[in-house]
Amino acid sequence: MTRLTALALPIFALSLAAVAARADVVAKAASPDGRITLTVSLDGEGRPSYAVQRDGQPLIADSRLGFMLTDAPKIERNLMLADTKRDRSDTTWTQPWGEWATIRDNHSEIHLAFREKSDLERTMDVTFRLFDDGVAFRYTLPDQPNLHHVNIAEELTQFAFAQPGTAWWKPAFEWNREEYLYNKTPLDAVGTAQTVMTVKLAGGTHVALHEAALVDYSGMNLARVQGNTFRAALTPGAGAPKVSRNAGFSTPWRTIAIADDAAGLYMNHMILNLNEPNRLGDVSSWIKPGKFVGVWWNMIKGNWSWARGPKHGATTANVRRYIDFAAASGIPAVLVEGWNVGWDGNWFGNGNAMNFSQPTEDFDADGLAAYARSRGVTLIGHHETGGSASHYDGQLDSAFKWAADHGERVVKTGYVTDAGQIERVDADGTRHREWHEGQWMVNHYLRVVQTAAKYHVSIDSHEPVKDTGLRRTYPNWVSREGGRGMEYNAWIGGKNPPEHEANLVFTQLLGGPMDFTPGVLSLSGSEGSAIQSTLAKQLALYVVLYSPVVMAADTPENYAKYPGPFQFVKDVPTDWSDTRALNGEVGDYATVARKEKGGDDWYLGAVGDEEARAVQVTLDFLDAGRSYIAEIYRDGPGADYRTDARHAIVIEKKAVRKGDILTIAMAPGGGQAIRFVAGGKARRR
Amino acid sequence: MTRLTALALPIFALSLAAVAARADVVAKAASPDGRITLTVSLDGEGRPSYAVQRDGQPLIADSRLGFMLTDAPKIERNLMLADTKRDRSDTTWTQPWGEWATIRDNHSEIHLAFREKSDLERTMDVTFRLFDDGVAFRYTLPDQPNLHHVNIAEELTQFAFAQPGTAWWKPAFEWNREEYLYNKTPLDAVGTAQTVMTVKLAGGTHVALHEAALVDYSGMNLARVQGNTFRAALTPGAGAPKVSRNAGFSTPWRTIAIADDAAGLYMNHMILNLNEPNRLGDVSSWIKPGKFVGVWWNMIKGNWSWARGPKHGATTANVRRYIDFAAASGIPAVLVEGWNVGWDGNWFGNGNAMNFSQPTEDFDADGLAAYARSRGVTLIGHHETGGSASHYDGQLDSAFKWAADHGERVVKTGYVTDAGQIERVDADGTRHREWHEGQWMVNHYLRVVQTAAKYHVSIDSHEPVKDTGLRRTYPNWVSREGGRGMEYNAWIGGKNPPEHEANLVFTQLLGGPMDFTPGVLSLSGSEGSAIQSTLAKQLALYVVLYSPVVMAADTPENYAKYPGPFQFVKDVPTDWSDTRALNGEVGDYATVARKEKGGDDWYLGAVGDEEARAVQVTLDFLDAGRSYIAEIYRDGPGADYRTDARHAIVIEKKAVRKGDILTIAMAPGGGQAIRFVAGGKARRR
Repeated sequence: MTRLTALALPIFALSLAAVAARADVVAKAASPDGRITLTVSLDGEGRPSYAVQRDGQPLIADSRLGFMLTDAPKIERNLMLADTKRDRSDTTWTQPWGEWATIRDNHSEIHLAFREKSDLERTMDVTFRLFDDGVAFRYTLPDQPNLHHVNIAEELTQFAFAQPGTAWWKPAFEWNREEYLYNKTPLDAVGTAQTVMTVKLAGGTHVALHEAALVDYSGMNLARVQGNTFRAALTPGAGAPKVSRNAGFSTPWRTIAIADDAAGLYMNHMILNLNEPNRLGDVSSWIKPGKFVGVWWNMIKGNWSWARGPKHGATTANVRRYIDFAAASGIPAVLVEGWNVGWDGNWFGNGNAMNFSQPTEDFDADGLAAYARSRGVTLIGHHETGGSASHYDGQLDSAFKWAADHGERVVKTGYVTDAGQIERVDADGTRHREWHEGQWMVNHYLRVVQTAAKYHVSIDSHEPVKDTGLRRTYPNWVSREGGRGMEYNAWIGGKNPPEHEANLVFTQLLGGPMDFTPGVLSLSGSEGSAIQSTLAKQLALYVVLYSPVVMAADTPENYAKYPGPFQFVKDVPTDWSDTRALNGEVGDYATVARKEKGGDDWYLGAVGDEEARAVQVTLDFLDAGRSYIAEIYRDGPGADYRTDARHAIVIEKKAVRKGDILTIAMAPGGGQAIRFVAGGKARRR
Repeated sequence: MTRLTALALPIFALSLAAVAARADVVAKAASPDGRITLTVSLDGEGRPSYAVQRDGQPLIADSRLGFMLTDAPKIERNLMLADTKRDRSDTTWTQPWGEWATIRDNHSEIHLAFREKSDLERTMDVTFRLFDDGVAFRYTLPDQPNLHHVNIAEELTQFAFAQPGTAWWKPAFEWNREEYLYNKTPLDAVGTAQTVMTVKLAGGTHVALHEAALVDYSGMNLARVQGNTFRAALTPGAGAPKVSRNAGFSTPWRTIAIADDAAGLYMNHMILNLNEPNRLGDVSSWIKPGKFVGVWWNMIKGNWSWARGPKHGATTANVRRYIDFAAASGIPAVLVEGWNVGWDGNWFGNGNAMNFSQPTEDFDADGLAAYARSRGVTLIGHHETGGSASHYDGQLDSAFKWAADHGERVVKTGYVTDAGQIERVDADGTRHREWHEGQWMVNHYLRVVQTAAKYHVSIDSHEPVKDTGLRRTYPNWVSREGGRGMEYNAWIGGKNPPEHEANLVFTQLLGGPMDFTPGVLSLSGSEGSAIQSTLAKQLALYVVLYSPVVMAADTPENYAKYPGPFQFVKDVPTDWSDTRALNGEVGDYATVARKEKGGDDWYLGAVGDEEARAVQVTLDFLDAGRSYIAEIYRDGPGADYRTDARHAIVIEKKAVRKGDILTIAMAPGGGQAIRFVAGGKARRR
């Protein structure tokens, strides 16, 4: 090959790791408590890299930074550090809804401006924020003489773990989008992973890689290079660059959450803190967390259809019955799918027949809206695009006006098509195929949320872009799917295994709320097929898997069979003033306690996996000097997800107070749910 | 969510593996000897897949087929089998040069035409060829009403290994192109790999994945999805599609070589058999395999420079001296790098100053051409593009005319820039950054070879596209780099480890010849740094690592110090009538015997790794009833790559005949070279 000038010989010849070893540290920073430290280096070739340590132990070894462009030399080599700025911030802000009412944002910041020593003299800035529980960084590419427009072929960001470990991850770029079970493998056996990817390092430290504030950019996946080293793998689009923007922008934040244990990861607020503040102002009048029921479970089981015909689910009569059921149960909303024109043909991957303001003839939209209003219930709308995103774009305003006119406060959207099969149509009619997390779709999802906000409608995105904390900026983006939800339990093949939710809470849920649709108390899917859960676990999911809009997914007929357990579904809030992840191991179990916003009661949910397990929790979170009645929903004698005894449940009450120790026993496939009713407080309905 | 019609429920809900399990077999085929079998299936969603078995044991489990397109729905679902054709062929053909003079092509073929059941009714054909030692397949996309132009976003081909195993692989898409050491990891710890990827399955069977006849398409890499399942990951280009072509073409062949052991993989001829026959006619007058010396080793060590100045290597005086040395040594060619104008600035990644028909003022091109001719030596030219491929395109004709006019029969090309940094300039001046193995560069490399052929010049590509057997069709494409060659041993850091060549022979070399540049008998790089090899191993490399053009890389001064070992370098041929891989384990050791074309002598090379090792070989390959003198070059007492004793060598002679058993002892970092001189034959010079 003949690749070198004599001067450059030793550097060129080195392996990546060896190059990193020869780098000179050009900047250092530390978290507010000093435990987490950052070093930024430049090697002899002018390649920048960063590394992260905690308590002096390396977590992330020197990892490269930079960009490949489709139309210009990459920005990566031959850089010098031109400027360094530091900042320090400690603030607290309030959420309109969420797991915590107030959130502290305590971080130090270092802003580094790198400039090319070559003729182009391009500048690439990197801003690092160090929290006591993690590190985040983003690039800024200023507008400059030799970089007015940026066409990114690939981001060169690396994450080189400094220790081996165990990873929980889902494959990226596969046909079924985010809907995969989590793999648990050695860190060096990951393929290409979606984020959130959660890692337990050999030393015990837990790390979660993700991103925050994904706006006008494509989603980042993690491709393993070799060993424990990963590189960013941006989601493609239909265009040549994965990202195309005018210079003068910042990328999303790349986030490295760090904790002693899995529960610690759940308590991390970096993702929200790295997003811009609320741009929608006071939303209290129109964004209302709450539970809902709906015609969906009978559809997904195959009993009813979305399309018109003898099995059509969204008929006036059916929906009236659900409105009645919701009203009688104190559940404020009813989701209606399949209410509109466009479902009759093969809509999977082709939603160009969908009309989002034209109900089917057997759905009396005006009458039902009025009836719902009369019963104190709202309807939740549904916009299934079949992946025809441009077609949906053309109806956005009319669709959300129609929704608002019919009293819908929330709309569930859907993009049911395989990965990479989103249809984009240019103004001139040219057709393209986009990925759900490519730049164009990232912008589409946000356009939907912004349009909905104009009409005071909130969005629950299915087949969504991943959650990167944009609910802070747009609090009407209330929830999303983005993983394997309850629907997989409707189907005869491929049911979710018992460990699934204990994976979700420490992976996807670190990004934000998930519309999992729990509460199938019948524990049965299509043709009576058994769901791999106990009854108590179905209740626990309402506490463990947070979503401000959460479904009671089963049918009214089934809930009538389980009045005792259904009481917890009726009781459990969807908005919280405080949350404590009490314990957990990724994929094994998780226990979470939350305090009702605007109330004094606490709720606890614990979910396990296929093993029987008992965990002890100390009730430290309760108010001192106050008595509580614990309403306990626990797995009954012999409960087991593998047998009909999965329905065995014991509901009992127990007086407790702060500091008491409770033993939470979980059956195989089980869980436990507890309401701690604060002393003297009347039962809420 | 909400992704299904009731009918489709069970299929949609299944994991990939489960889907495959439900597929119906629609076609079967077997290799000529019946041991290898193929099954092709369609699942309930109309997704085709293939699987491969040997002796009834699954090697490749059901693996998907299809394409994603940038501008139309993917071709993958909803397919039916419209037509099946079968064929059987057993032929033998002759190579103008190579490891074997004649090659047998014995295969059965099954051609399957899939057609979409949907409105588009597109057709995708898949042709499988089954050999006794492997399976290959390629797609054909006919020109058709709904597919006139094909813009491929990704090929959906999978390779789902049915057994765990150990893999030897290099990471794909990393900055240093192909120049990485091989990883040896569990199969399920591969990241994204280049091909050739070699796998030893748990059952002992060896499999190598690669491709054949890469023409007007982008190179295939292997991304691991999860577990032991891989998918094709085509190399990107600067354009949106990874491949853009008019319909009516076939893809390269995806090849699955299968053998009982590593040596068996080396004996596989699928790659050559799957390429089109020689298009250049009788090339015997102008394509001449042979050894060469050159000014390069002093450059790569930093003693001399490519650029003009006091250290300039390609001076008239220096090159005259090398011509003299070549002539005196019976070596027919001298490579001259840095002979032309354009090296003075920073040419790395920017070769736009390179002029390929303008020598520097201290290089008397005409005089040296005449002098070389007078000494019976030819000069090997050198075209370093610095990755500026369009710039080179603009000079191709003039450059090769100049080369031919100066008696150059071979030109070494170079594309020294990081991965993804090839410069392409459109006719309108628009600049793009291309990958070395993207479609545009695949076409560029072949354009260079085709242009060179017009002038009867052969090409030795450095920083090349991988070898997919095109030497059969264009026999002037004689060699290439494409891996870590001897140059890494010139540099102080990052020297090749002792196992490197035992990796190469069972990975990269399965694709074709490599210009490794062996024969550094001084065993020293820059500043006297020690090369991790014994002296005998340097000789063995001439036999083990095949290339029809092969360098004696060390300096004349150094060769003068080792007249005994240098005799083997002078003796060893570069063209063979027969080759036998005698034994080996990937990355541990390899023993290869070859018979000189046009002669009766055999040569044997054995290379090891860092361990001392003795292997026994039976001299079955020698002619019966004939006596041979084995001229043995073996590691001497105490030889060890870690000490100065790496130079210890014993040269001895021994009478042998067919069927004798030889014990080949190799020191740590060692090897052995043997010439078997056929009885009565005069010593050749």
